[in-house]
Amino acid sequence: MNALDLIKEQVRNLEPYSLRDYEYDIKLNQNENPFGFPPELAKKAWERMRTMDLARYPDFHLTQITRRLANHVRMEREGLLVGNGSNELIQVTLMTLLSSGDRFLLPVPTFALYRPIGVILGAEPIRVDLNREDFSLPTDRVLAAAREKSPKVIVLCSPNNPTGVPYPEADVRRIIEESGALVILDEAYYQFSDQDFRPLLDDYDNVVIMRTFSKAMALAGARVGYLMGRPPLVEQIAKAKLPYGLNVMSEAIASVALDNYDLLEGHVQELRAFRDQLYQELCRIPGVHPYPSQSNFILMRFDWPQDEVFEHVLADGIIIRDVSKAPMLEGHLRVSVGTRQENQAFLRSLRTLAERKGAR
Amino acid sequence: MNALDLIKEQVRNLEPYSLRDYEYDIKLNQNENPFGFPPELAKKAWERMRTMDLARYPDFHLTQITRRLANHVRMEREGLLVGNGSNELIQVTLMTLLSSGDRFLLPVPTFALYRPIGVILGAEPIRVDLNREDFSLPTDRVLAAAREKSPKVIVLCSPNNPTGVPYPEADVRRIIEESGALVILDEAYYQFSDQDFRPLLDDYDNVVIMRTFSKAMALAGARVGYLMGRPPLVEQIAKAKLPYGLNVMSEAIASVALDNYDLLEGHVQELRAFRDQLYQELCRIPGVHPYPSQSNFILMRFDWPQDEVFEHVLADGIIIRDVSKAPMLEGHLRVSVGTRQENQAFLRSLRTLAERKGAR
Repeated sequence: MNALDLIKEQVRNLEPYSLRDYEYDIKLNQNENPFGFPPELAKKAWERMRTMDLARYPDFHLTQITRRLANHVRMEREGLLVGNGSNELIQVTLMTLLSSGDRFLLPVPTFALYRPIGVILGAEPIRVDLNREDFSLPTDRVLAAAREKSPKVIVLCSPNNPTGVPYPEADVRRIIEESGALVILDEAYYQFSDQDFRPLLDDYDNVVIMRTFSKAMALAGARVGYLMGRPPLVEQIAKAKLPYGLNVMSEAIASVALDNYDLLEGHVQELRAFRDQLYQELCRIPGVHPYPSQSNFILMRFDWPQDEVFEHVLADGIIIRDVSKAPMLEGHLRVSVGTRQENQAFLRSLRTLAERKGAR
Repeated sequence: MNALDLIKEQVRNLEPYSLRDYEYDIKLNQNENPFGFPPELAKKAWERMRTMDLARYPDFHLTQITRRLANHVRMEREGLLVGNGSNELIQVTLMTLLSSGDRFLLPVPTFALYRPIGVILGAEPIRVDLNREDFSLPTDRVLAAAREKSPKVIVLCSPNNPTGVPYPEADVRRIIEESGALVILDEAYYQFSDQDFRPLLDDYDNVVIMRTFSKAMALAGARVGYLMGRPPLVEQIAKAKLPYGLNVMSEAIASVALDNYDLLEGHVQELRAFRDQLYQELCRIPGVHPYPSQSNFILMRFDWPQDEVFEHVLADGIIIRDVSKAPMLEGHLRVSVGTRQENQAFLRSLRTLAERKGAR
């Protein structure tokens, strides 16, 4: 017997996820918060940690952070589940719903994690392409596919990653009302948009909302996310969640972030302004075609091969994200919104390339 | 439609895991390291954390800790996977192997997490009772069940939790050689025994070893575990593992623990001595029947109902673990080995009860 034969076929067929390491000075590839986690808040967290006994398991109920989150999002505690990044909560939600033979529907392109998790669980992904011109949500096509294929789960990321496009609430409501599926609303980037789907939980029981501390909250390194839903649904999902998923240090630092949200909110407002400026500047560079974004990143296509752009910018010490392998995104790159200086450096690099191209 | 109808039947049928909160002074219920994480090591870790930018994602390859672990266990890096506690690695390993209709075999009683994860994945648990007199491994019965039921996975915890019994290497080898299954060896407590199954990886490709920083390494609050296996197998399991599962703070503190293992090793040796003393003292109390243990806890049965013992000890401010709901363990309790003072307090409490019972 070869032990590898025991591995599920769908796992063996997956491409291993590998990440090439690059040398760079400016990091604009993972939609992180370029202001960093505020040192004055980190200091408060270190103070709390100093008195912790790390040899003891975390509080089973994560009371400290759950209480603060309940207050932050105006939600009863029983409707909240805190996890080791929203990744963990995405996985556990799909685990409670999907088995071999089930289907799940993804408007694509979207966040890359949903598809492999569903596939590993044996479920069949139903792909619905976003509208080609502006990556808007093709609501009628989503509903037609839902009628035809009866997916148990539909995932809507809004604003979507890597497009930056938010989906209109009226369309999201129609899909929740008419699809017959559980709708996962992934709001990883909602603070950079004018949307907040939290109130939909008052109207529907077939919705789960995913959120993260990795973007606006500036804590990607701490791995904290949360899920919101109606308490009876959350109780079921919680049964599949591993106990003690959040470590005591991350609970402490995320609690400090919530206690001092005003400071982080100020940085979010700055990033929104930087994003709009960056978009305007990108529009002015010949050969560069950015898409409007309600997130902390911007999707672009070019009059030139995207790998030339990627390598040119990298040679200037700036790492951005090549998303050209994603469905519908051939030739596209994504850039995170950085600090004012970082954005200027990126624009300078692109302008140099555009001038060189124009001169030929 | 009711959204709860979309939840898998096997999840709906699971009992929600709930934990009653008790008041206590001495905590001997979770097999934690009673010495705590050494303050001088915690200080080193805080120093490292001070310079971290928590807004950035962790290193995708977890180079810092993986390099140290490779050295610690004398294993190539490609054979290691580090996770958010061994719980995460147990879950991801089962996810890569088990689907609806598959079977997995558990000698019981054992660590409680394996069964629900397998069940949620749709697999059928095959229960083989341990030998009743001493909770030793019934190797012939395990192999007979494996021949009859063809499980894809067999889980062997050694030393087993909550019994404290190690399984002989010769028996473990027989099961690996003859079962046709992937064998998960859970070595959460191996530092408290005379065993180390790491060398089995040199001989077999159908083995995965699970380890944790929560016990001997005194870092239950940091949630760090690791998995060892042959690189081709680990590569498959890694495909199903969520990226960025370990936060930067836990990686730092676990790295400090590995760099200073001598100090922790000293505490482990003390705990082994305390365990043997505690066992001897328990043997001398009339009506108390402890089992020999190669771990940092002791399983006991009594001439009296176990809930009377639990409540009596709790009234003295000591929390231990009621394991009486586990298969074969009716009337049993489990106590973690504490500091010398904690163990003495527990023994005093039990002696008082025994005297009161004897006097009646």
